[in-house]
Amino acid sequence: MTAFPHGVFSTPGTQPRTGVLVGDEVLDLAAASGDPVHATGSLDAFLAQGPAAWAAVREQLPRWADGPHRVPLADVELHLPFTVADYVDFYSSRHHAENVGRIFRPGSPPLTPNWEHLPIGYHGRAGTVAVSGTDVVRPCGQRLDDDGPTFGPSRRLDIEAEVGFVVGVPAPGPVAVGAFADHVFGVCLVNDWSARDLQAWEYVPLGPFLGKSFLTSVSPWVVPLAALEHARVDPPPRATAVLPYLDDAGLRWGLDLTLEVRLNGQVVSRPPFAPMHWTAPQQLAHLTVNGATLRTGDLFASGTVSGPDRDQRGSLLELSWGGTEPIPLADGTTRTYLEDGDTVTISATAPGPGGTRIGLGEVTGTVRPARTDWSTP
Amino acid sequence: MTAFPHGVFSTPGTQPRTGVLVGDEVLDLAAASGDPVHATGSLDAFLAQGPAAWAAVREQLPRWADGPHRVPLADVELHLPFTVADYVDFYSSRHHAENVGRIFRPGSPPLTPNWEHLPIGYHGRAGTVAVSGTDVVRPCGQRLDDDGPTFGPSRRLDIEAEVGFVVGVPAPGPVAVGAFADHVFGVCLVNDWSARDLQAWEYVPLGPFLGKSFLTSVSPWVVPLAALEHARVDPPPRATAVLPYLDDAGLRWGLDLTLEVRLNGQVVSRPPFAPMHWTAPQQLAHLTVNGATLRTGDLFASGTVSGPDRDQRGSLLELSWGGTEPIPLADGTTRTYLEDGDTVTISATAPGPGGTRIGLGEVTGTVRPARTDWSTP
Repeated sequence: MTAFPHGVFSTPGTQPRTGVLVGDEVLDLAAASGDPVHATGSLDAFLAQGPAAWAAVREQLPRWADGPHRVPLADVELHLPFTVADYVDFYSSRHHAENVGRIFRPGSPPLTPNWEHLPIGYHGRAGTVAVSGTDVVRPCGQRLDDDGPTFGPSRRLDIEAEVGFVVGVPAPGPVAVGAFADHVFGVCLVNDWSARDLQAWEYVPLGPFLGKSFLTSVSPWVVPLAALEHARVDPPPRATAVLPYLDDAGLRWGLDLTLEVRLNGQVVSRPPFAPMHWTAPQQLAHLTVNGATLRTGDLFASGTVSGPDRDQRGSLLELSWGGTEPIPLADGTTRTYLEDGDTVTISATAPGPGGTRIGLGEVTGTVRPARTDWSTP
Repeated sequence: MTAFPHGVFSTPGTQPRTGVLVGDEVLDLAAASGDPVHATGSLDAFLAQGPAAWAAVREQLPRWADGPHRVPLADVELHLPFTVADYVDFYSSRHHAENVGRIFRPGSPPLTPNWEHLPIGYHGRAGTVAVSGTDVVRPCGQRLDDDGPTFGPSRRLDIEAEVGFVVGVPAPGPVAVGAFADHVFGVCLVNDWSARDLQAWEYVPLGPFLGKSFLTSVSPWVVPLAALEHARVDPPPRATAVLPYLDDAGLRWGLDLTLEVRLNGQVVSRPPFAPMHWTAPQQLAHLTVNGATLRTGDLFASGTVSGPDRDQRGSLLELSWGGTEPIPLADGTTRTYLEDGDTVTISATAPGPGGTRIGLGEVTGTVRPARTDWSTP
């Protein structure tokens, strides 16, 4: 079984167009379908068409995949698959939020009082969402040292392993939890690179800004929700009753995905998505409940995915417990945060039909040294 | 003297195109110039051309303004003048930040420790930035009552009188303070409508989200920086030395603008822009110092403009001191926060040549009742 994920590809000398991943080949959807919507160099127009159009294409895919319009994956360049409209990042893993609370605010309750009542989120920088493979240039910025703020390359460059949801059909808000699949096309993998030292100094009182805005990487393939039917599970039980607009009882939009985080090729974590406290329909309902409009290309991400176990944490902040417990690597070195030259790859799988598993692709990036070729007045 | 602000207009049955405000008429720049860049229905392409192109048009404007291609302002519809890429909102008025600190955290230092070291900011929702005149539908959402969170229409709907800066020329970050005018085309007026009750409950730890994201209104006219030469002043003295990348000494990009806030026609505040602690070049340098790229259409706003005096505060939160000191209106009623039907208009003027003053246009909106025509599952 294949997930038939959608992306945008080109081969040398050709224009970017929509492709569908089939094994280790890319089906040229523009050529196979003859539909110009797949020749625009972006999924945008197709995303906007909505569930009936998505299903119609999906029905044809097995036939087209057996046809001639296939290119080896190794021969293509993959592009950012859609135009990111607004990017929202949530904070929906209880284990992650509790870990962060314990690391940064020891002795205090790990969760803020609002955490169980609403899916906390914030807007990130849409213009720096880039496709997997984009270099991660170590960001410079302000961080608080013992003698006050200093400027320089981040010393605590981190990852956040996340799952992103891609909006297709625009709407005026609010969008009810039950309308989730009428608007969201599919999922991608997200690495929300984070400079913890910049973030710690800047984030009170208005939230993360430069600690995040230098780069957010997304996988080149968007997996349609329709491919995840076998991954749907009930979300975990929640002790606190939610307001009616967040009630997702019976919707079964928990997703039994297993993420895998590799640092320089070595698996350092396998975060499970099923225990996420807030589901994507709840996140979508929340972010639009004030009447905020939804646009094609809106991307909202889950927040760092961390499970209950030590080897299920989705950030180095947690894996190294705030830098106090270095992570041993196979080459004999250790890591607290990322070093220049490190490569991080996040992949994921989901249950498919008949006990199979489907792949959700991967998002990868390599850390490059901070820029030194610029000066200030 | 006219500022020759740029906008996008249409008349009944015609396509939106670029116009320049000249008195109470709109110069049809597409017709006058014959340049198709002004016929696209957006300033985007012109903004991207950069300072030389902007100056070349500006040089021709007095001549074109005397020509035939003028339409009465009363006959046109004004549109959102540019495609908002990313929207960043700063927090750069010391008086505003201190007022908010005193209202929300009495007994604590009014400013957070980072405030004098960096221009605090966050990303807002670009997709809900709308042109002046767009109705302000009272947002619904969660707010904390005595017995826990409840859902309903905001009871503390507020304004934030701000000045926005519109990016024309894209760049990879960082953009040094001295390169400000190479990238920013001009300024607009911004009303960052805020639901204080939603904001207060949601904003810890990741910042404002739904309390702001329902609507941000901008003036239809963008005033080129070139029109503000006579408004440039030194920023106020700052007691705390800043890091070199934020050093704007000698740049003289303080702006002696005077804002005016009218509530149902009555002036309730005249916030001065000159005392703003952080200047726009500093904001731009900060937001890109981590390598974040800049796009045409990026909008960054000053944050609420409040002066030292009581009648210079740029939000109702401050004018009513957290709702404890109702604002008397001429009709005998009072206001703490906005009521349905209220209209708020923010305008501004700046010094022009020879003791004249130039207008920066206005941004207006009327509050409509919360939606009741939707239900949750």
